[in-house]
Amino acid sequence: MNRILPTVSAENLTQFETLALATSSMNLADGHARQQLTAAQSKIVAELPSMWAEAAMRPAPEIEQEATESFFGMLGQHSHPFAAGRTLSCYSSSLAMEILARSLVTTSDAVALIHPTFDNIPDILRGVGLRLVPVEEEQAHDEDLPAELLEQVGCVFITTPNNPTGRVMSEARLRRLAEQCAEYGVVLALDTCFRGFDPDAQFDHYAVLDASGCRWVVIEDTGKLWPTLELKIGWLVPSANVDLPIEKIHSDILLGTSPLILLMVKRLADDGADGGLAELQRTIADHRALLRAEFADVPGISFVDEHARVSVERLHVGSRLGMDVWSAVRSQNLYVLPCQKFHWARPHEGERMLRLALSRNPSTLLAGARVLRSALLDAPELQG
Amino acid sequence: MNRILPTVSAENLTQFETLALATSSMNLADGHARQQLTAAQSKIVAELPSMWAEAAMRPAPEIEQEATESFFGMLGQHSHPFAAGRTLSCYSSSLAMEILARSLVTTSDAVALIHPTFDNIPDILRGVGLRLVPVEEEQAHDEDLPAELLEQVGCVFITTPNNPTGRVMSEARLRRLAEQCAEYGVVLALDTCFRGFDPDAQFDHYAVLDASGCRWVVIEDTGKLWPTLELKIGWLVPSANVDLPIEKIHSDILLGTSPLILLMVKRLADDGADGGLAELQRTIADHRALLRAEFADVPGISFVDEHARVSVERLHVGSRLGMDVWSAVRSQNLYVLPCQKFHWARPHEGERMLRLALSRNPSTLLAGARVLRSALLDAPELQG
Repeated sequence: MNRILPTVSAENLTQFETLALATSSMNLADGHARQQLTAAQSKIVAELPSMWAEAAMRPAPEIEQEATESFFGMLGQHSHPFAAGRTLSCYSSSLAMEILARSLVTTSDAVALIHPTFDNIPDILRGVGLRLVPVEEEQAHDEDLPAELLEQVGCVFITTPNNPTGRVMSEARLRRLAEQCAEYGVVLALDTCFRGFDPDAQFDHYAVLDASGCRWVVIEDTGKLWPTLELKIGWLVPSANVDLPIEKIHSDILLGTSPLILLMVKRLADDGADGGLAELQRTIADHRALLRAEFADVPGISFVDEHARVSVERLHVGSRLGMDVWSAVRSQNLYVLPCQKFHWARPHEGERMLRLALSRNPSTLLAGARVLRSALLDAPELQG
Repeated sequence: MNRILPTVSAENLTQFETLALATSSMNLADGHARQQLTAAQSKIVAELPSMWAEAAMRPAPEIEQEATESFFGMLGQHSHPFAAGRTLSCYSSSLAMEILARSLVTTSDAVALIHPTFDNIPDILRGVGLRLVPVEEEQAHDEDLPAELLEQVGCVFITTPNNPTGRVMSEARLRRLAEQCAEYGVVLALDTCFRGFDPDAQFDHYAVLDASGCRWVVIEDTGKLWPTLELKIGWLVPSANVDLPIEKIHSDILLGTSPLILLMVKRLADDGADGGLAELQRTIADHRALLRAEFADVPGISFVDEHARVSVERLHVGSRLGMDVWSAVRSQNLYVLPCQKFHWARPHEGERMLRLALSRNPSTLLAGARVLRSALLDAPELQG
């Protein structure tokens, strides 16, 4: 059990998150769902053995269809292209990302990518050999993209709701961006993995994209919503006109996902549509309020994403350095995420922020918040 | 449910396998385990809800360590480097393959790859931009590799036991190959995903590799052994001296695998070590005997891999074309795998062979064998 690194040698956000897993620590680092199961969810887990028998008996594509319809339906994504074979299920959204990146690089050498965003997106895109051009979040949301940008890239990649900011691209803005991508022959790729948390992101994205005529790809994810021990599905959904070798590369890496996980996703999504998702959104809102209250009287601290509804929350630590605060609370067994690596083009822009996970039990969240509060209030070297 | 392609447009073996999933057909196509659970395995599945509670409670790295020790131990792979953080768990062995390929291409432009082998290996390697040089199976097993080959590649990649042939690299031969790779500074990569089926492959590979001083990577897999509905772990195990960005790329794609799957793997491996693996080997031997008996009197048919113990079996269909036989039995709802794509460098060498899966219930296997037997005996156009 030597995975506790003696010094900080994390190269990316995931390696920072791994540090939090390696000990019996307070883990507010990763954005995976780690809250308790609700009563309805516990009932589904209790039925896993009978779901196993069902999954072993029935044709896998039939189960996959049901899971797709329930999950996409819960998200308000009613026009999914399952029947056309274009909802490709993957073990995770990051694997969907890898397949997309490998597909893009066959026809393109550059991607315009939202800034900031979770660093495994730029790292995977760069890892396959793509050059990245940053698109500031404000720019993506507020104005047309410049022609000189669209002329030099094969794809525009937007995370909505964004991780870590929670910012959601509106239907009107998505429509205009898609029109621009259609005009320039550029693929519009969306990562919507956090959209279950925000009703504003639960409109029919594919209908908007199709209406524009642009080539598009969307990555969907069950993995952020429910505390299912990393049993999850990422979907990679390309448009009919995408003209990338996505299906081939998908089939190089997998024959299919687990019918047991798909059955479980169907059941969880049905419960979600029946009130479970609204309950989750209330839980996250409660946790966000709890966290904000805990820091209300700490000088120099602010919550930068006022309207965020996603399951992570950014804290600006004033004139302190996020890494100093990270080190201080780590010595008390609390793990959070320093934000510089979200700002993949200009890390210094994130160096005074931390990201905290909200998808935890309230007791864990409160205990972690109190450790962080004490560190911010007490340690003289952390004074803002 | 439009995934039944009207004509054969499969680009790779996995797409051929997908055809078999899309219907309520007799599926002898893919090599995934689809036999019934044994009584001991059923007991483990029945305990999934309590294993869920356990996995949610305990630190994930502790569960991962137990799963690694049980699984590697069952395979006779006693010297695993878990404590050094070098047993990287992945959602599947193909994902481990993708991560390895992405790592190799950062320092190398060519790989020497065993021929034949399952086509997703060459497709993934080529997909990241690597050039492939075939190493004939006989050559890899019988003689030193030529200097001119080793001088032009960054990696030698061997599947042992091989898929589809079942051929196992002996300890003595592995030692010599590793010495050659050490001498030329070439990474020796092994895919040992089928080694649970063959006791001859259950020696301590890592000890042999380490003793040679070569840089090495091994891909291990739980996915072929047990009928666990695609719940599986692939492990990517690099040597300490590998000098490739494997850990970084792994962390770009995943934070970790499911602790529930890891707990299940531990339980299945403990049962395997306690007699379950020997029982599985007997089952596969029985199925192989059943299949061979069914075709004993069919003219022009032969089983080419006499000593194979893996869960797939190749059938030479004489002067017939495998694709013709494939089409004939497909019309009767039986799916098998035509072999030309295993021969990734010279497909014609596989065009008179089919691969049949043995990890099925005997009734499915027998029903499929009888359809195939009739097709081979009756259809005049298929006469050898």
